[in-house]
Amino acid sequence: MTHPRTLRVDYDKTTKVLCVVGSELNVKLHRSAPPRSMYFSVKCTPSVQYSISPPSLETSHLSPIPLNGNSVLLISMSRASQHENDSKLSVRYYGKDKEVLGRAVLHLTALEISLDVDADRDGIVEKNNPNKGSWKWGPNGHGAVVLVNCDSERSYGKKPDTEQDYISKVSDLKDMSVMVLRTKGPAKLPEGYKLTMHISQGDAESVRVFRSRSTEVGNNVLSDKLFNHFVKDYPLVLSSESLSQEVPYLGGVEEMNFYVEGLRFPDKDFDGLISINLSLLEPISSVLPETPIFTDKVVFRMAPWIMTPNTLQPVEVFVCSTSDNYQFLKGMKNLVARSGYKLKICHEYMNRGDRWMQDELEFGYIEAPHHRFPVVLDSPRDGDLMDFPYNELLGPDFGYVTRVAQRKDVSSLDSFGNLEVSPPVTVNGKDYPLGRIIIGVAFPTATKGRNMTKVVQDFLWAQKVQEPIALFSDWLVVGHVDEFMSFVPAPDRKGFRLLLASPDAGYKLFRDLQKDGHGQAKLFEGQGDAEPVTLDEVLSDEGFQAENNYVQSCIDWNRDVLKRELGLDDEDIIDLPILFKLEEDRANEYRAAAYYPDMVNMIVLGKNLGIPKPFGPKVNGRCALETEMCSLMEGLGLTCTFIDDFASYHKLLGEVHCGSNVRREPFDFKWWNLEM
Amino acid sequence: MTHPRTLRVDYDKTTKVLCVVGSELNVKLHRSAPPRSMYFSVKCTPSVQYSISPPSLETSHLSPIPLNGNSVLLISMSRASQHENDSKLSVRYYGKDKEVLGRAVLHLTALEISLDVDADRDGIVEKNNPNKGSWKWGPNGHGAVVLVNCDSERSYGKKPDTEQDYISKVSDLKDMSVMVLRTKGPAKLPEGYKLTMHISQGDAESVRVFRSRSTEVGNNVLSDKLFNHFVKDYPLVLSSESLSQEVPYLGGVEEMNFYVEGLRFPDKDFDGLISINLSLLEPISSVLPETPIFTDKVVFRMAPWIMTPNTLQPVEVFVCSTSDNYQFLKGMKNLVARSGYKLKICHEYMNRGDRWMQDELEFGYIEAPHHRFPVVLDSPRDGDLMDFPYNELLGPDFGYVTRVAQRKDVSSLDSFGNLEVSPPVTVNGKDYPLGRIIIGVAFPTATKGRNMTKVVQDFLWAQKVQEPIALFSDWLVVGHVDEFMSFVPAPDRKGFRLLLASPDAGYKLFRDLQKDGHGQAKLFEGQGDAEPVTLDEVLSDEGFQAENNYVQSCIDWNRDVLKRELGLDDEDIIDLPILFKLEEDRANEYRAAAYYPDMVNMIVLGKNLGIPKPFGPKVNGRCALETEMCSLMEGLGLTCTFIDDFASYHKLLGEVHCGSNVRREPFDFKWWNLEM
Repeated sequence: MTHPRTLRVDYDKTTKVLCVVGSELNVKLHRSAPPRSMYFSVKCTPSVQYSISPPSLETSHLSPIPLNGNSVLLISMSRASQHENDSKLSVRYYGKDKEVLGRAVLHLTALEISLDVDADRDGIVEKNNPNKGSWKWGPNGHGAVVLVNCDSERSYGKKPDTEQDYISKVSDLKDMSVMVLRTKGPAKLPEGYKLTMHISQGDAESVRVFRSRSTEVGNNVLSDKLFNHFVKDYPLVLSSESLSQEVPYLGGVEEMNFYVEGLRFPDKDFDGLISINLSLLEPISSVLPETPIFTDKVVFRMAPWIMTPNTLQPVEVFVCSTSDNYQFLKGMKNLVARSGYKLKICHEYMNRGDRWMQDELEFGYIEAPHHRFPVVLDSPRDGDLMDFPYNELLGPDFGYVTRVAQRKDVSSLDSFGNLEVSPPVTVNGKDYPLGRIIIGVAFPTATKGRNMTKVVQDFLWAQKVQEPIALFSDWLVVGHVDEFMSFVPAPDRKGFRLLLASPDAGYKLFRDLQKDGHGQAKLFEGQGDAEPVTLDEVLSDEGFQAENNYVQSCIDWNRDVLKRELGLDDEDIIDLPILFKLEEDRANEYRAAAYYPDMVNMIVLGKNLGIPKPFGPKVNGRCALETEMCSLMEGLGLTCTFIDDFASYHKLLGEVHCGSNVRREPFDFKWWNLEM
Repeated sequence: MTHPRTLRVDYDKTTKVLCVVGSELNVKLHRSAPPRSMYFSVKCTPSVQYSISPPSLETSHLSPIPLNGNSVLLISMSRASQHENDSKLSVRYYGKDKEVLGRAVLHLTALEISLDVDADRDGIVEKNNPNKGSWKWGPNGHGAVVLVNCDSERSYGKKPDTEQDYISKVSDLKDMSVMVLRTKGPAKLPEGYKLTMHISQGDAESVRVFRSRSTEVGNNVLSDKLFNHFVKDYPLVLSSESLSQEVPYLGGVEEMNFYVEGLRFPDKDFDGLISINLSLLEPISSVLPETPIFTDKVVFRMAPWIMTPNTLQPVEVFVCSTSDNYQFLKGMKNLVARSGYKLKICHEYMNRGDRWMQDELEFGYIEAPHHRFPVVLDSPRDGDLMDFPYNELLGPDFGYVTRVAQRKDVSSLDSFGNLEVSPPVTVNGKDYPLGRIIIGVAFPTATKGRNMTKVVQDFLWAQKVQEPIALFSDWLVVGHVDEFMSFVPAPDRKGFRLLLASPDAGYKLFRDLQKDGHGQAKLFEGQGDAEPVTLDEVLSDEGFQAENNYVQSCIDWNRDVLKRELGLDDEDIIDLPILFKLEEDRANEYRAAAYYPDMVNMIVLGKNLGIPKPFGPKVNGRCALETEMCSLMEGLGLTCTFIDDFASYHKLLGEVHCGSNVRREPFDFKWWNLEM
């Protein structure tokens, strides 16, 4: 029951009133009484319910009841009228001798109105959900969901559907949330009354509303078949240019479908919540604005953009073909084919020699109870691959989003090798069933240094459902978190292991080999692009050891942050034997890069790992680094495939992960079931 | 206890370590062990605490314990060192026959560090409050408060203190929040270690941090006397231009004072929370960035701007003096003097004929546990009074804030007669101990209409502690909520009554008078500026009655919203007999203005009400409207004084309230004790 509406009633007049079922009218009897009224009585047709406040002691309201300054008549109706003015109520006023002083007559018409959404999140628009006007997180929560319509129904001459304010294909309706206006009442509204849908200026920046000119009875599942029965005409109702618009009242028992289209993702200045209102307006006169006498409100939350961790099932693997990466491509093709996934190759006309498929984009998805589709986040990196996400990925049911930064604010840390996501974790009792986003930045204490650009960071934080963690990655030449960390699935513990590059583990392995008499075994052997070097030489270089001590302390700093922010124990972490070297840049600053192919920079395809072939020292004819890697992974049931990326990636400061990207299945877990 | 920090230890070396009391070091023993190590033992000086994980079964750690891949040594220190490296710990590694393979030695220095704030909100900076790093609303909440330093220490050549990034007067420190860096340890930090204070780019837009060059021992109450002992030199530590800066370590047991200065109020893009960090940095080498090995964080919330309702005690009353308002001014002077408050007159050289003191500004205040002062919100209305708030009000302990809107976006609804605040209320169990802000806008359903400008609305909503209510005021020519509503104190019920203008109450009163034979009594009698008119004439004008019915329905719409949003009953509302008339504007739209002086547009000074003299029909020699008004108010113990504002205000579409302003005492209730 909404709050009662104050109704003005004049005596000696007939007042025509439109009353919405479920609402109450409040008539201040004293205010509308003739002078010197002392008593009143009430009479009505059976379709009208009323009560008197303060309650009267008389058994019948047909005989005079004392009138006082606070006397209020509360009127309601429980059923829609079939005809205008088919219900009546009258109040008689009496003087002190119970002589009749006047009579106020109401002619009532009742209407059922509800603006409905899928507030219980089951994909069906239920009728008048009591919680439709608010939004609550969690499995016991409520509130409808709307998607940013960021895919493109057209494959040619395409642009995201949000960029056009009309519906050109009925298939586009699937990307929108259905909202149903259910009405019941006489064939038409009394003269001058109107239904109006309206939205605030702020919310109109985030959604548009279309409606269907035809009506659809009793079925809100939007099958293709049904669409074809539609008249292909969906007028725009609400937008930034039209914050309020009349909508037709169809008469009798009717449902009218509306389609709510999301226009932008949650961000620093948009918390994701949107209200849409429907009001019934009462006419006053042609020169005065109509008064809203009933308002129904529904609330939506814009679905966040969600990233997919390595533990989710792959769908497609993306790599670039370049003039010099035949060896790598062959390795990847074999791995992906063996794993049973689809390999998509971005050819040179499109990549223009830019092989860093990981860096230009990040795959994610958006989901509502009625629909879900992948969405690519395009990095402001904008290398020669810059057109790939828009030109090749955007399409029907494949969305696109980007954040535009000023050129001067973009650094290597804006490449999405520097944007990862953990598997689901629980931290001090708090669940992150969609994991946590991980990015790399400069030390917060640094007076200078590179950072991920603010517009992208703001976007990531605003999605809320995968609360980001900022690591320190500015110690690396390239500066990406995927140079020192990865996640692999595991059958035990938390369902995964965090892999960390570890110079200490590298030195430990090499020293053990040296002790065992393999000091003359060579790194980089059989590799045309680097001079082989013996273990003894590597281990005797004290400067090199100092550099690696520094790298280990940088990684340890991140290790401590990851343990704290992901709730990990040491047993959840595996140290991989990887050495780094420092390089001096133009500003005389030193930063690190992998000394031999950086095995942690791997591609994870289910239980198959595609790992940069490290070209480590051979022991008994087998690379000792590969042996160690396999031994660390096989306990988890994982298979290692070593891919030669030395010449075409490693020498250019990237590896397998940097040169590939994986689109994965979404989580089973629904983001709206998060407890926030 | 913070999360342990991973410490790299090499065998056959001495590692010098700085350890912060209350933190833990985590040494992975396996990682730093010589090849083929099978056992280890640990020895340390009494100042060092350690534990072994997984726990060892041996009673003594001096004899060899089996080493496995997970062996971890956790080290902590409970007291600050007096000298560098005054504590020692060593680990011995053994082979399978328990022969010694190597030894790792740690030389430890312990430091106590805490960055402290007034997290328990008692005005004193306590030591290391466990909740200092987060903020929680409510009486059981915690978290420090910072004020926007929006007053001006200088009275001449003044500007808000936020506009200068240096401290020119020590009195300015009172407007800032003290933050204390407490340290205990050796006389100086080991070579290369540093303390650094840092802040994020976003937070630096909202605060600056200064420090005191001198130190202050054991007293954080900032008395004037103490200030004078200070060296008047407060270097800027953190700002938008300097996000990270080294701060001195003073050695021994020391406290250093910092001063946090708020720069901007919460707004749409600023939720009010700010973090300030202090890190201990470990040197690596001159060409590499130092690593933060310990970080302490404190959180502040920016104090919101708070409005004061009519039920709070007045301090000062402001009116304008113009060439034509002698009569009004005389009435106001008498009323204010009688009530015992201070009257401040804004003279013509400053007001330039603009008499609408209510409209140009709104008085409010900001409060922290250590300090509080009034702050004027300057309206973007910018009439001829526009310089008054800045030139006359801004000063020592009198703050100033404004929001700048584009000229085209500013309408009459931006005058602050359209910005009011309710007394404290409870709505459906939710407490609003500081009341709720009330503004007037167009109907949300309107396709056109005037609104309060977005920048001001965003500001008001962002303060959070007096959640605004939007009423419909665009039906009025001037469009201010103070034309149809006011609040007066009451001894019973909710402590106040809502007064509403009511044409129905007016008609009722006039009809009763007519019935009693006073139909020939005249309105406007004895008033030179309006033609007298009889009650009979007024009551027989059907068009006029229709206009007033419309006005009543507009007010009733607001009445319903106010009942719902303030949790009021009909008994909390008093209808005042006031009639309106409609006027046609240039766009052929009709809007309302008071027909006779609008009694609800009153000034409330404790129990004394200053009410526009209505010039109603005289009955037995006394104005019937005044009689009715007095009778309605006297039950509440309120005294009515009628002030003649007819010629100089009413005829210009304003009344007593529009022409005055009241600065009031702040609430006793502290805003941080709100349950949000």
